Amino acid sequence: MQMNPNRDTQLCMSLSGRPGNFGLRFHNHLYEQLGLNFYYKAFSSHDLPGAVGGIRALGIRGCGVSMPFKEACIALVDELDASAAAIQSINTIVNTDGHLKAYNTDYIAVAQLLETHAVPKDTTFALRGSGGMAKAVASALRDGGYTNGLIVARNERAGRALAESLGYPWQAELGERRPQMLINVTPVGMDGGPEAGQLAYETEVIAAADIVFDVVAIPSETPLIVRGRAEGKQVITGLEVIALQALEQFVLYTGVRPTDEQFQQAVAFARS
Amino acid sequence: MQMNPNRDTQLCMSLSGRPGNFGLRFHNHLYEQLGLNFYYKAFSSHDLPGAVGGIRALGIRGCGVSMPFKEACIALVDELDASAAAIQSINTIVNTDGHLKAYNTDYIAVAQLLETHAVPKDTTFALRGSGGMAKAVASALRDGGYTNGLIVARNERAGRALAESLGYPWQAELGERRPQMLINVTPVGMDGGPEAGQLAYETEVIAAADIVFDVVAIPSETPLIVRGRAEGKQVITGLEVIALQALEQFVLYTGVRPTDEQFQQAVAFARS
Repeated sequence: MQMNPNRDTQLCMSLSGRPGNFGLRFHNHLYEQLGLNFYYKAFSSHDLPGAVGGIRALGIRGCGVSMPFKEACIALVDELDASAAAIQSINTIVNTDGHLKAYNTDYIAVAQLLETHAVPKDTTFALRGSGGMAKAVASALRDGGYTNGLIVARNERAGRALAESLGYPWQAELGERRPQMLINVTPVGMDGGPEAGQLAYETEVIAAADIVFDVVAIPSETPLIVRGRAEGKQVITGLEVIALQALEQFVLYTGVRPTDEQFQQAVAFARS
Repeated sequence: MQMNPNRDTQLCMSLSGRPGNFGLRFHNHLYEQLGLNFYYKAFSSHDLPGAVGGIRALGIRGCGVSMPFKEACIALVDELDASAAAIQSINTIVNTDGHLKAYNTDYIAVAQLLETHAVPKDTTFALRGSGGMAKAVASALRDGGYTNGLIVARNERAGRALAESLGYPWQAELGERRPQMLINVTPVGMDGGPEAGQLAYETEVIAAADIVFDVVAIPSETPLIVRGRAEGKQVITGLEVIALQALEQFVLYTGVRPTDEQFQQAVAFARS
């Protein structure tokens, strides 16, 4: 049973171009399970400064920030956590008495996943993508000590910039390389996108790999993940990324860390 | 059962110096009873322009405005309803696709109460008070055709200004006058105020009256109302005012008018 709202109820929110349901279902379910006097609301906006001003003026406790606001938001907050400062991209704002501190829990989540999946540090990898999320994932790899990487991006300018900023080589296409870990941080395979249903890597490249890691979460069983599973590869899914990053947001907002069982139940509820 | 929040949930809110629980309990209870996908949150703020900017940027559907923002808010909205324009004081903002229209549902509620209580138009009355709420009540009387009135206010400047703007005489004290209807729009009798527990009119003045009308809602059984009831006078309470004005806000925000039974149940719930 959700707590009856009262004047002390704290609001958390998300801000995105097109809100989804995952975050609000995840957070509200955990508030209810843990008896926390919070409520989570998904907002879209065309006015980022006005929205962030509203967070300050209304004392909204926390805000998840999605596309297309992850970089523009930086100028509007007071402090960047290390997770956001290194990559100049944020996905979380925590408001403590009007002081806005920004984090990147995507970065934190990817770093955790590399650890929990026990990915060896000397794994060779290719990362496809050059956008804000690619920056978060590649930075987590670099900071985690994964040095044998390659950025693959058709957009030369963005791809080179990302690769050079982190000390990785860049290539427009994978070519003859056969890395041990294949990472997709592009919309390839995403429902509703122009490349829905498509494989982010060639079948022979997948066959030669040990690990496939797809950041696409809708669906989390992308063609890349399905193929990887079928061939017995180790897989890391976009669902794991969005769930873990939401968990870290929850902890930042409430100061409470759910048990693993509570976390898993909230993920199941949020997807249902 | 409250609807599960989703990305289409609409937010309504209140903005005040010190939020209470009545409005949020009233609105959330009716959302639940009527199966409306809304949520109501009470906010306090020290930054009115930032808060109203947030209402616009986040697409918050409606906002109840309390002290001390009722007049300062006027400059921040796009349009004043007649209920707010006449008295230059607002208590409600309705946001339709970024266009903010302001209303004064206190004024609307008082006008309705004078009608439902069948107060004769030629009733002589005294109204104590000179603040924003006094302006709303006195304007509803004037616009309702109650011409035999008197504004009583210790603050000469505010009292005279209010009285002259509406065509009533002003006096600092009631003196020898014995009006048929006694109206209190001051904090006299309000819990937690400097004049808690005190009578807003002298006992012999109450004895000579027919109707007592107290706008104080916490408690709604003020000393004035208690004394009026004991002497068999007709009474109009502050609870009736805040309940009716909240009902009119609800209708403006949702487009749905609850039945009288649903309304009464929501009032009972909000007070419990």
